[in-house]
Amino acid sequence: MDDLRFVLHDMLQVEDLCSLERYKDYDKANFDILLDSTKAYADKVIYPSYREMDQQPARYEDGKIIVHPVVGEMMKHAGENGSIGSFFDYEDGGMQLPHVVYSGMSHITQSANNALPGYPGLTTGAAGLIASFGSKELKDTYLPNMMAGKWAGTMCLTEPQAGSSLSDITTSATPNADGSYQIKGQKIFISGGDHEYSDNFVHLVLVRIDGAPAGTKGISLMVVPKHRLKKDGSLEPNDVLTAGDFQKMGQRGYCTAHLVFGENDNSQGWLVGEANRGLKYMFQMMNGARIDVGLMGASTATAAYHASLQYAKERPQGRRIQNGTKDAEKEQTTIINHPDVRRMLLLQRAVTEGSIALLMQTSMYHDLSMYGPEEDRTRYHNLLEVLTPIAKTYPSEMGRTSINNGLQILGGYGFCTDFPLEQYYRDIRIMSLYEGTTGIQSLDLLGRKVVMKNGEAMRQLVEEFKESISAASNYDDLKPYAEQFKEASKELQAVIMHLLGYAMKGEYERFIADANIFMEHMSTVVLAWQWLQLATTAKTALVTGKNTYSTEFYEGKIHTMRYFYKYELPKTAGFKTILLHKDSLTIPEESKVAFA
Amino acid sequence: MDDLRFVLHDMLQVEDLCSLERYKDYDKANFDILLDSTKAYADKVIYPSYREMDQQPARYEDGKIIVHPVVGEMMKHAGENGSIGSFFDYEDGGMQLPHVVYSGMSHITQSANNALPGYPGLTTGAAGLIASFGSKELKDTYLPNMMAGKWAGTMCLTEPQAGSSLSDITTSATPNADGSYQIKGQKIFISGGDHEYSDNFVHLVLVRIDGAPAGTKGISLMVVPKHRLKKDGSLEPNDVLTAGDFQKMGQRGYCTAHLVFGENDNSQGWLVGEANRGLKYMFQMMNGARIDVGLMGASTATAAYHASLQYAKERPQGRRIQNGTKDAEKEQTTIINHPDVRRMLLLQRAVTEGSIALLMQTSMYHDLSMYGPEEDRTRYHNLLEVLTPIAKTYPSEMGRTSINNGLQILGGYGFCTDFPLEQYYRDIRIMSLYEGTTGIQSLDLLGRKVVMKNGEAMRQLVEEFKESISAASNYDDLKPYAEQFKEASKELQAVIMHLLGYAMKGEYERFIADANIFMEHMSTVVLAWQWLQLATTAKTALVTGKNTYSTEFYEGKIHTMRYFYKYELPKTAGFKTILLHKDSLTIPEESKVAFA
Repeated sequence: MDDLRFVLHDMLQVEDLCSLERYKDYDKANFDILLDSTKAYADKVIYPSYREMDQQPARYEDGKIIVHPVVGEMMKHAGENGSIGSFFDYEDGGMQLPHVVYSGMSHITQSANNALPGYPGLTTGAAGLIASFGSKELKDTYLPNMMAGKWAGTMCLTEPQAGSSLSDITTSATPNADGSYQIKGQKIFISGGDHEYSDNFVHLVLVRIDGAPAGTKGISLMVVPKHRLKKDGSLEPNDVLTAGDFQKMGQRGYCTAHLVFGENDNSQGWLVGEANRGLKYMFQMMNGARIDVGLMGASTATAAYHASLQYAKERPQGRRIQNGTKDAEKEQTTIINHPDVRRMLLLQRAVTEGSIALLMQTSMYHDLSMYGPEEDRTRYHNLLEVLTPIAKTYPSEMGRTSINNGLQILGGYGFCTDFPLEQYYRDIRIMSLYEGTTGIQSLDLLGRKVVMKNGEAMRQLVEEFKESISAASNYDDLKPYAEQFKEASKELQAVIMHLLGYAMKGEYERFIADANIFMEHMSTVVLAWQWLQLATTAKTALVTGKNTYSTEFYEGKIHTMRYFYKYELPKTAGFKTILLHKDSLTIPEESKVAFA
Repeated sequence: MDDLRFVLHDMLQVEDLCSLERYKDYDKANFDILLDSTKAYADKVIYPSYREMDQQPARYEDGKIIVHPVVGEMMKHAGENGSIGSFFDYEDGGMQLPHVVYSGMSHITQSANNALPGYPGLTTGAAGLIASFGSKELKDTYLPNMMAGKWAGTMCLTEPQAGSSLSDITTSATPNADGSYQIKGQKIFISGGDHEYSDNFVHLVLVRIDGAPAGTKGISLMVVPKHRLKKDGSLEPNDVLTAGDFQKMGQRGYCTAHLVFGENDNSQGWLVGEANRGLKYMFQMMNGARIDVGLMGASTATAAYHASLQYAKERPQGRRIQNGTKDAEKEQTTIINHPDVRRMLLLQRAVTEGSIALLMQTSMYHDLSMYGPEEDRTRYHNLLEVLTPIAKTYPSEMGRTSINNGLQILGGYGFCTDFPLEQYYRDIRIMSLYEGTTGIQSLDLLGRKVVMKNGEAMRQLVEEFKESISAASNYDDLKPYAEQFKEASKELQAVIMHLLGYAMKGEYERFIADANIFMEHMSTVVLAWQWLQLATTAKTALVTGKNTYSTEFYEGKIHTMRYFYKYELPKTAGFKTILLHKDSLTIPEESKVAFA
C-alpha cells in the first residue's frame, strides 16, 4: 500500500487532478478512502478465494458454466459501491473518478486475486463502449443494470479461424426490418462469458454486416445480449448458446467461454454507433483494456514478491560465505541474507514497483488526454498511445520473470501446491497472450506508435525523459544514473533511426521483423526512466525532510533504482547489437532453413 | 532422431569409443539398433501416457502412493532390456554401454514423457552407488533385483529443515551389534519414493552416525530398504513409512514422497563404503545425475519445439507484411511465415539442439574420463567437472525460455489444456530446482570448478575452444563466427580474472555474489562453442559431399548457428557489464535496503 501511495501521491501527485473541472468533487482524502476501503474488501473477500478458485476451476456442465460463488458476491459488491462505472460521466450514472485512481484500486484487487476482478472489470469495459458510442436507447436499456452489477458485460472479438487477425472475422449480421440485426457466428476465449451469478450477459460483438467491405474496414460493433428484453420488460432467450469453457493452465477460476450466436437464426443484435466503424470503437477502449492487463500482470507479480519475501525472511538455511558455509556448528542464517536470494528479491522489486509506476503514469496520461488543459491533450494522448503497448507488455513478460525468481527463492517448495507461488507462476502466463499477444503489441509499438504523426509521440516522450534527467541531476549521487539513462535514451533513438531506414527503403517486413526485440529494448529504457523518477522523488523527500515514510523506505527506492541500472539496463547493449545486426535471419526468403 | 544422430555420429563420432577396451563389443550399428528400439518403445508406450499421467497425478491415499499403471510397465521393460544397468560393468550384471549412448537413449525417452523414465533412472542411480561403493554382500543382496526392474531405487538427501544445506541433515544412524544401523529421521522430495508397482524400494539415504563430526564431514551413506530380507529370503517391513506425496505444478505423474524412517525404532540400514564419506560417494554420482536433469530439461524443450513447429506449419493466420497485412481478400498465410514466429522457432532450435550437443559431449567426457587413454583421463575428468553445472543449468533455464516461446506460438491455445504446451511449460520448471538449484550450480561453477586445481579445468576448456576455432576457420564463411567466439572467450576469461581479484583479497562473499550472472555468461559462451562445432560439422559434410542427410538439413544447422550468434551471444555484453560493475548491491551490509 505504501508503495502504491508513494507512486500516486509523491511521484505523480494525482491530487493535482482535482483542480480540473471534471474531478473537482474529489480531494486527496477521498482518494485515500477509496483505496483503503478497496484494501479492506480485498483482504476480507477477494484474497481468501484466490486458491479456492484455482482448486475449483470454472467448468462446463450440461450447457452451463459453473464458477465459484464469490463471483456473485463480487459482482453485487461492485454494483453497490459504484466501481463498475467509476470513471464514467455523472450523466451516465458514473463517478467521474480519474482512471489513475481506478487503476490504483484495480492494483489492490488484482494483487489479492487476479482471477476475480475481471468479472466486474469486463462489465466496465462493455458498459464503457455503450456509454461512449451507443445511442440513448442502448444506454437506457443496458447501462443501469450493468452498473448495478446485475448484468455482466463481455467483449467478443476472437474467432476460431481468425485469432489475432481480426480482419478475418466472419460472424455475420443481417439487417432486420426493425433496425436490429440477425447475428450468426462463433466466438471463443470469451472471459466471463457465462455463469449463473448474473441475470443477463451483454456481449459486445465484432461482426461483419452483410455486404460490408472486406478486412478491418467492414467490421461493426453490436450489442448482443444473452436474453433480450421483451416489450413488457421481461427477458427472453436470444439464441446465444454456451458451447464450452476452455480449460487453462492458470486463471482457472476465470471462465473462458465458447459462445455460439444464432444457431437457430434467432439471435438479435443492435448496432453500436455507425456501421463498419466497430474496430475503431473497440480500439478506443483498447488502451484501457491493455493497461488493465499490464496491471493484472504487475499485480500478480507484486503478490508473488510478497509471498517470496515472507518466505525469505522466515526460512533458515545455510550460512553466509564469510562465516564458513560448511560450518554446521554455527546457527543457520535466514535465506534473505544470501546475496543470490537478495538479488532475486531486488529483481522482483525492480520489475513490480517500476511497472506499477509506469502503469499509474500511463493511466494519468489517459485522464489528462481527455480532461486535462485543452492545449496539452494531444501531447498526453500521444504519450498514452506510445506507452500503452509497453505498459501492457513489460509487466506481462518481465512480471513472469519476476515470479519465476520468486518461485526459485522457495526452492522445491515453490514447485509444490502447498505454497501459492506455483499458482502465480501459472496465472501470469496468460498476460502476454490476452488483449493482443506480445508479438502484436510489438508490431503496434514499432510499426504504428513510434512512427505515428512523423514521430511526434516519440519526440514528446524524449522530452519527458529530458525533464526527468534534469530533475535527477539536481542531486550529485543521482547524476551518474541520469547520465547512464541519457546515454541509453540516445542509443534507443539511434536504433530507431537505423530501423526507419528499412521502412524508408520500402523494406517493411525487415523493418518490423525484430519488433519483439525492439519492444524489449525500448521497454527496458522506459522502465529505467520510471526508476529515475522514483529515485528522484525519494531523494527529494529525504533532502527536504518531508517524510511520509521511514528513511529506509526512501533509501530502499534508491537502492532498487541502483539495482535496475546495474542489472537490467545493461541488457540494452545486447538488444542494440541484435537490432543493428546486418543479417536478417527470420524472413522466409532470406532463411533457407528447412524446419524438420 | 536425425538431430541426435548428427550429434552422436557426425559431431562426436561416438563409434570411436569402440576402439577402447571397455567398449570393444560394440560398433556403430549396435548403437543405432539401441536408439531405434528405444524410439519404437517410446512411441508405443511412453509418449501415449504423457498427458494421462498429468491428468491422473500421483497421489497419496491411505498410507500409499498411487501412480499410473504405466510405471509398472516401464520398470518391467527396463528390467527386461537391461537398460537399468546399461553402463555398469559386466561383472555387476551391466552392459558396459558408453554413458553417451545411454544419454542418447534417455533423450528419446525423456522427450516422449519426462515424468516416466525417472522411475528406472533413479533405480540406475541408486544401483550405481551400490555397484561403485558397496560391499559384495550389498551388491549380491540388492543389485540383481534392482537391475531386473523388480526393486526400485531412490536417493534420499533432502530434509525439511536443511533443504540445499546438506551439512545440516539430522537423520541419525545408531550402530547395532550385527554391523547394521538403526535409522531415524525424515526425508522429503523423494522422487519415485513409493508406489505399488515395485516389490521393494532400496533407499540410498544420507545420515549422520551417532557421534560423527558436524557438517559435511560427518555424513554417511546407508542402504535402507522399505522391506528387509529375512534369513529365509522372504521380506519383512523395515519401518519406512510413507507420510505423503507432494502435489506439484508439473511432473505430476512422477511421485514425490515424504518418507519417515524408524518411527517405531525398527528401521535398519547398512553402510555403503566407509563411515563419514557419504557426501563424497554421492557427489561421485552427482555428475551423472546432474547431466540427467539437464537432459530432462533439453528433452522436454525438444518435445515442446516439435509441438509448436507442427502448429506453426498448420495454422493459417494473417498475411505477410509485404503482401498487405490487412487485405482480407488475400488468402491467409501459415504462421511459420511470420518473422516473429520464425524467430521463436529458431530460438527453440538454438537452445534445444545446442543443449543436446553439450549434454552428449559432456557424457562422452564422462566415458573418456573413466575408460579413455590413461594419460588423458585427468583432462577429460576436469572438462566433465567444469561443464557439468552448465550442462545441468543451461537446458533447465533456457529450456524454460524455449518452451515459453513454443507456447507463445500457439497464442491463446498455448494456455489451454487442449494442447500439450502448457504441460511442457509446467513440467520443465522443476529442472532448475532438482539436484541442486541454479543458485547451487552457480556457486559450484564459479566457487569450485573454475578455480579447481588452480584453474586447470578452465585452461583445458579454453584449449578445446581453440581447437574448435581453428577447425571453423578452415571455412571462409564460418571465420567471422570463429572470430566472434574467440572474442567472447577472451572476454569471459577477463571477467574471471576480475572476479578472482575479489577472492584473492579474501572477499569471498563478493566473489560469488553474482555467481548466477556468471553462470548465464559462461553458459552462453559454452553454447556458442557447441554451435561453432555443429556448424563446422555441417559445413564439412557439405564441402566433402559425405552427406548422410539433405542439404537443407546441414544448412539448417548453419543457419541456426547464425541465429545463436546474432540473438544469443550478444547477451554477454550485458552480463560482462554486471560482473565488472564496481557496486555490490546484494551483500546485506552493503545494501541497507529495508524489505517491507
